[in-house]
Amino acid sequence: MDDPVLLTGAGGRVGQAILRGIGDAHDWRLLDREPLSSDHLPTGVGEDDVVVADVTDEDAIADAMDGVGAVIHLAGDPRPEAPWNSVLENNIDGTQTVYQAAVDAGVENVAFASSNHAVSAYETDTRTPEMYRPDDDYRLDGTELPRPGNLYGVSKAAGETLGRYYHDTEDLSVVCVRIGNLTEGHPPRNYERGQAMWLSHRDCAHLFDRCIRADYEYEIVYGISDNERKYYSIDRAREVLGYDPQDDSAEYTLAGDPIDDE
Amino acid sequence: MDDPVLLTGAGGRVGQAILRGIGDAHDWRLLDREPLSSDHLPTGVGEDDVVVADVTDEDAIADAMDGVGAVIHLAGDPRPEAPWNSVLENNIDGTQTVYQAAVDAGVENVAFASSNHAVSAYETDTRTPEMYRPDDDYRLDGTELPRPGNLYGVSKAAGETLGRYYHDTEDLSVVCVRIGNLTEGHPPRNYERGQAMWLSHRDCAHLFDRCIRADYEYEIVYGISDNERKYYSIDRAREVLGYDPQDDSAEYTLAGDPIDDE
Repeated sequence: MDDPVLLTGAGGRVGQAILRGIGDAHDWRLLDREPLSSDHLPTGVGEDDVVVADVTDEDAIADAMDGVGAVIHLAGDPRPEAPWNSVLENNIDGTQTVYQAAVDAGVENVAFASSNHAVSAYETDTRTPEMYRPDDDYRLDGTELPRPGNLYGVSKAAGETLGRYYHDTEDLSVVCVRIGNLTEGHPPRNYERGQAMWLSHRDCAHLFDRCIRADYEYEIVYGISDNERKYYSIDRAREVLGYDPQDDSAEYTLAGDPIDDE
Repeated sequence: MDDPVLLTGAGGRVGQAILRGIGDAHDWRLLDREPLSSDHLPTGVGEDDVVVADVTDEDAIADAMDGVGAVIHLAGDPRPEAPWNSVLENNIDGTQTVYQAAVDAGVENVAFASSNHAVSAYETDTRTPEMYRPDDDYRLDGTELPRPGNLYGVSKAAGETLGRYYHDTEDLSVVCVRIGNLTEGHPPRNYERGQAMWLSHRDCAHLFDRCIRADYEYEIVYGISDNERKYYSIDRAREVLGYDPQDDSAEYTLAGDPIDDE
């Protein structure tokens, strides 16, 4: 079996989507700052594979990195409205701790959970809501400069830049995934923006599986399903990672209209 | 007279170059974490115009912002080799404190001292030293993603993104100046890279004068003189700010060769 994959923030929404989808496909080490109950763990993952620690705890993170082959780093304050002090500590400082520990431990690659909020201020009043619609060809592709719509998004952009630095200076392979709107079962209703950036649970798990297995240097990709309505390009994720999403929020719409509640 | 300009890091190298060049042109409020001696002050600036405070001190920065029209924010740990904890606190957290206080006080524009180190990892082994030479047409122009060569550069890139956020959400005018190699009298000797990114003292003062006076939304510009050998474009600074540099490191070379010590 390959070296274990360290998954930080394993108990969170994205972490649980990944574990439910590809829990059997890898040997895991799970990290969360809260204890994980047994229904949060894939089959075969026992207490010895779970680390309860904060990502800003350098010693604990260094210990958790021992023998690890790849890292999926999700831990942080996930609230778009999180205050500056929290994202500074949990998201910016915590992410630097994880990258540095990965380098020190000789880890080969890190997938970093960035966010659509790193670029949400591209959605200006003059551009929306047309950009959410299928006939609009506006696309962000990951080469654009960050334009965060909140301080959480600023912290995610900083995590991307930290990844660039650790790639360029330490040869760490880093992929930053700007995750869209992850919901289970169906796309968000009455929310065109969320439909345009929908990421289904199975596509999420598959995408991070590709982040573990693929060869890359430094990448910024968008993490959304193969939605008919979109303003994020998934070409780069397909090309570099072999991402092959199965879902499309349009399949849940009626006659091409946005999904409405009954 | 216009509202005073708040200059943070007034006692540092860049701050002193600015004050020596345009000390008479504005009404100043000077901030530094160390007391400033009288030879650091322009004529007409007295003790009442000097604030001794750390940029991470929210209350002190809020007080210093009172009645200010524009800010030149230079304060921070200036060492390219500065450790993470110092740049996290002084450069990232400190810069957020300054932007937020500027917004709260109704300041119109902030010029942020970014750095060539925010993009120094574009200088790869295969690209250098040719990119430092006059016949090479490789140019960075401020639209490229950050590629810091050190954690100090990461912190400067984060300051740029914070500026983008405060512009997009609070309508603050922000210009980020990626300052090159500022030396007094002549360009650095025996250092092609430094010659290609040389910023003379008078061009530095003039550039920040333009940052105070010009109208702009959000900009990233390069702060170098009009050097014959360069890999940073100054087109955007000329166009948006009206930057009109007077110096060129090539004027100090012999027969087009890099400057050598005797």
